[in-house]
Amino acid sequence: MSEELPSGPKESPPAPRAAPREVWKKGGRLLSVLLAVNVLLFACTLISGGAFNRVAVYDTNVFALLTAMMLLAVLWIFFYLLRTVRCPDADAVPCRDAHAGPIWLRGGLVLFGVCTLVMDVFKTGYYSSSSECQPAVKILYPLTQAVFVIVQTYFLCVSAKDCVHTHLDLTRCGLMFTLTTNLATWMAAVVDESLHQAHSLSSSHGNTSDACLALDMERAGSPVREDCSCNTAVCQIFQQGYFYLYPFNIEYSLFASTMLYVMWKNVGRLLTSSTHGHRHTPSLLSLFRETFYAGPILGLMLFVVGLAIFIVYEVQVSGERGSAQQALVLYYSFNIVCLGLMTLVSLSGSVIYRFDRRAMDHRKNPTRSLDMALLVGAALGQYAISYYSIVATVAGTPRELLAGLSLTHALLMIAQQTFQNVFIIESLHRAPPGAEPHGTAAEEPCHGLTFASPDTLHTLPARPPAPRLVGPSPAGPLGAASVILAPRGHWRCRCLKDISLFLLLCNIILWIMPAFGARPHFSNTVEVDFYGYSLWAAIVNVCLPFGIFYRMHAVSSLLEVYMLS
Amino acid sequence: MSEELPSGPKESPPAPRAAPREVWKKGGRLLSVLLAVNVLLFACTLISGGAFNRVAVYDTNVFALLTAMMLLAVLWIFFYLLRTVRCPDADAVPCRDAHAGPIWLRGGLVLFGVCTLVMDVFKTGYYSSSSECQPAVKILYPLTQAVFVIVQTYFLCVSAKDCVHTHLDLTRCGLMFTLTTNLATWMAAVVDESLHQAHSLSSSHGNTSDACLALDMERAGSPVREDCSCNTAVCQIFQQGYFYLYPFNIEYSLFASTMLYVMWKNVGRLLTSSTHGHRHTPSLLSLFRETFYAGPILGLMLFVVGLAIFIVYEVQVSGERGSAQQALVLYYSFNIVCLGLMTLVSLSGSVIYRFDRRAMDHRKNPTRSLDMALLVGAALGQYAISYYSIVATVAGTPRELLAGLSLTHALLMIAQQTFQNVFIIESLHRAPPGAEPHGTAAEEPCHGLTFASPDTLHTLPARPPAPRLVGPSPAGPLGAASVILAPRGHWRCRCLKDISLFLLLCNIILWIMPAFGARPHFSNTVEVDFYGYSLWAAIVNVCLPFGIFYRMHAVSSLLEVYMLS
Repeated sequence: MSEELPSGPKESPPAPRAAPREVWKKGGRLLSVLLAVNVLLFACTLISGGAFNRVAVYDTNVFALLTAMMLLAVLWIFFYLLRTVRCPDADAVPCRDAHAGPIWLRGGLVLFGVCTLVMDVFKTGYYSSSSECQPAVKILYPLTQAVFVIVQTYFLCVSAKDCVHTHLDLTRCGLMFTLTTNLATWMAAVVDESLHQAHSLSSSHGNTSDACLALDMERAGSPVREDCSCNTAVCQIFQQGYFYLYPFNIEYSLFASTMLYVMWKNVGRLLTSSTHGHRHTPSLLSLFRETFYAGPILGLMLFVVGLAIFIVYEVQVSGERGSAQQALVLYYSFNIVCLGLMTLVSLSGSVIYRFDRRAMDHRKNPTRSLDMALLVGAALGQYAISYYSIVATVAGTPRELLAGLSLTHALLMIAQQTFQNVFIIESLHRAPPGAEPHGTAAEEPCHGLTFASPDTLHTLPARPPAPRLVGPSPAGPLGAASVILAPRGHWRCRCLKDISLFLLLCNIILWIMPAFGARPHFSNTVEVDFYGYSLWAAIVNVCLPFGIFYRMHAVSSLLEVYMLS
Repeated sequence: MSEELPSGPKESPPAPRAAPREVWKKGGRLLSVLLAVNVLLFACTLISGGAFNRVAVYDTNVFALLTAMMLLAVLWIFFYLLRTVRCPDADAVPCRDAHAGPIWLRGGLVLFGVCTLVMDVFKTGYYSSSSECQPAVKILYPLTQAVFVIVQTYFLCVSAKDCVHTHLDLTRCGLMFTLTTNLATWMAAVVDESLHQAHSLSSSHGNTSDACLALDMERAGSPVREDCSCNTAVCQIFQQGYFYLYPFNIEYSLFASTMLYVMWKNVGRLLTSSTHGHRHTPSLLSLFRETFYAGPILGLMLFVVGLAIFIVYEVQVSGERGSAQQALVLYYSFNIVCLGLMTLVSLSGSVIYRFDRRAMDHRKNPTRSLDMALLVGAALGQYAISYYSIVATVAGTPRELLAGLSLTHALLMIAQQTFQNVFIIESLHRAPPGAEPHGTAAEEPCHGLTFASPDTLHTLPARPPAPRLVGPSPAGPLGAASVILAPRGHWRCRCLKDISLFLLLCNIILWIMPAFGARPHFSNTVEVDFYGYSLWAAIVNVCLPFGIFYRMHAVSSLLEVYMLS
């Protein structure tokens, strides 16, 4: 709260002229938001129009628009980098937000960026091998995307923490435009993936490669020709490969969007000190020693079992009908066990926090606010699927095993996401690094962990890490526990680390399954029969990308929780 | 910014124990949001399921759920009123937010509440007159809604400004639940209205009353019987009447929702002083004298012409095909003229602000933040329709008069909403009542209006209202104008009043047309041919309610702008 200064110009004392600068800030924000909204809606119109065969908008229009947008964004990024390099550091970027762009977000961005580049290579190869049947813009698009990904990843790794103070309006508009480009790319990828998935589900008996090529040509508005086929081994590898790499591209766009949003929020922001930025990240190896090993081991076991079940499911569901039923039962059973365990573990984490009297962090932190909003917002996607599922199984007539499993799965999914969100959001607000004014305590945030009652706690802001007596505490249920202070690696601290690692691994396996093509929603006939195929497909295809993003985002948040606790 | 205190318990000094209370606040907010999200998604599932004939969810299920929710909300409101009446005022509600629930919001709430009551009477009459064909819950629903509307309107008129400080969690959850109930009612009303509209469009040749009754019975899951009909004059009046009163019910739910949201934001808030609440609202009559009369007169003319064109449109479109074309051309021409004028007027308002150096209001104000978010958010609905329209007319083949008109209309609609939003948002941040620490200037916010440069402006916080010399100002484009201070009723002040009144009247007529059934989107065949009927109907039916709400909300915001400038 007290961290932010009113942003005044440098040549005069900040107090008297604070107001006019603040005006400009709001105006600039409004303008950039209006720009972004309009560009995004236009892109959205074209993308959704291109998704329907009957509508005379083709995906070549979409690709042309996206290519133009990416080139513009690249130009702006070059302009930004040139300007900040040329200006002396204190003038253009007087301070940096230590919370923005943490190492795991940048690491994830680079990882997904590399996968997107591989996907672009595959796509270029696929379209080139049938270049006489495909319009030129389809080959141009992955090439432009590769350039865009390289430039943007470098830009975000270098500048994610910047609080820019020159050309405020231009910077805001540029950031918002780049953000819009990422969101539009994300939407186009989601639509493309959903259409291919629906197409391969409906035409699973014929030659899948040719069917996909026919779909591509149909969507591009060109007549389907008999001499166009994707029969060579290289072409088929390219086609299958880029299809499996889509989830990484989708995550890349969303990661870049969150980092750009935080940069946009930080434009024009002034921080009192940048001391919080000096905390060095401890190595992962030393951190692993601080757990009970129960969380990571159990999590790894679930991860391996889940991977095996996913492979069995993928093999059997594309096989004959009898084994598909078995695979579905197996798939649902694993998910139910996994979700049940995660719910219990999240709940116990929240219970541990009830006994933990560490101070909360009230400082302004756009990264954390965005994390909270994204966790709650992205959960809506999976919530919606679950509620539709519940209504279908309760109101529908068939009372069989799969309906029961589907109902249990949906109920547990709602409970798990709710309790996990509560746990993560409470964790992110606890014991932040650098909350104490004295630097020593900041690097081991769990040191101050104690059962002391709040009255005594707040009179002792900086305590030595060795155990000592706090003093007499008021009688009550917590009174007996408030005598000693926690030593390094206290059991509560370790428990929280175990919990976050366990949840992290479970979220990864729950991310992998839908992201790489498991769709029990369609193999299980309960909901399809109740809603009809087209309505249910619309619900799942709109909501599932948010559910997948939720898992990914929960993983990065849990990694942060693990580092902080 | 400095208005809000950290909320500590009353028995101890606030500083040391501020943190634990703040924790509780965030936790309580999170819990109530999670509750609201889950209830709303469940209601949303049932409502959307009930909208489709093929899905075995009937509107009786929806009505039963909504009735139960409204009864629960009424119980909670009684509990809240009893508690705040019994507690001494300073304990339960130590302060009141002067910005919350302004007089025009409460007035609008009462007005729309009365219309909703009339609608409930009509509905009860309609369902009772065919009671042997309709399930009992359909008669129970409007009766419960009437009770709910009466109780809630009283509650909001009495308590809208409260900053509650007892039973924080319960109050947050109760407010969120009531808010959810309103949103669910809104969704149900929107779906019901869209279905009836689509049904009466597709079956316009037969007996409309019987067709609607058949639709009602089909949606309730009961078999359509031959002996059920709505042939008596009373039944038909009831049926037609409640259909025309839907827009008011929809607005009532949204008004109540915004007031409940502001109350929810204010739970647990502490304000330093409540002096801003003492500003008396000047009478409307005295305010009218401060305009040039140009705005209201021009606005009234457009309003009357628009009303006439709307009636002609409604009469002719339901007639034969040739006159429908004429009516459409007339309708579009009027809208284009109106939107063009509004764009120019909004732009000139923004230009006036460029010369206006009044200080901005930086205090925390949940009502205003919500207003801004709603204006920008609700505009998305109309934006989306416009962009789909633009794509259809540009990419579609027919180059005729109606396509050109539709394109111009869509482009002007985007420009108008954008510039109007910029104007309103800037106005709401200017010259707030009570921005100056001295009470005298607060009641005539336009007094401080001056061309003075910001350097001199901020050293003179409280000026006498009489014209005087500010002093030498630095040379520059504004230097020459900075010599005199504005007297009462300065031309800029008057201009702003004229502008806001003109925009207000135009927004009312642009609200009336779609709210009472003008659907040029379907009469004009350009978009229907391009997207196909079902896709275009889905786009319009989802987006148009937001567009209608935008107009309504812009009216209330412009009234506020008029009062403040």
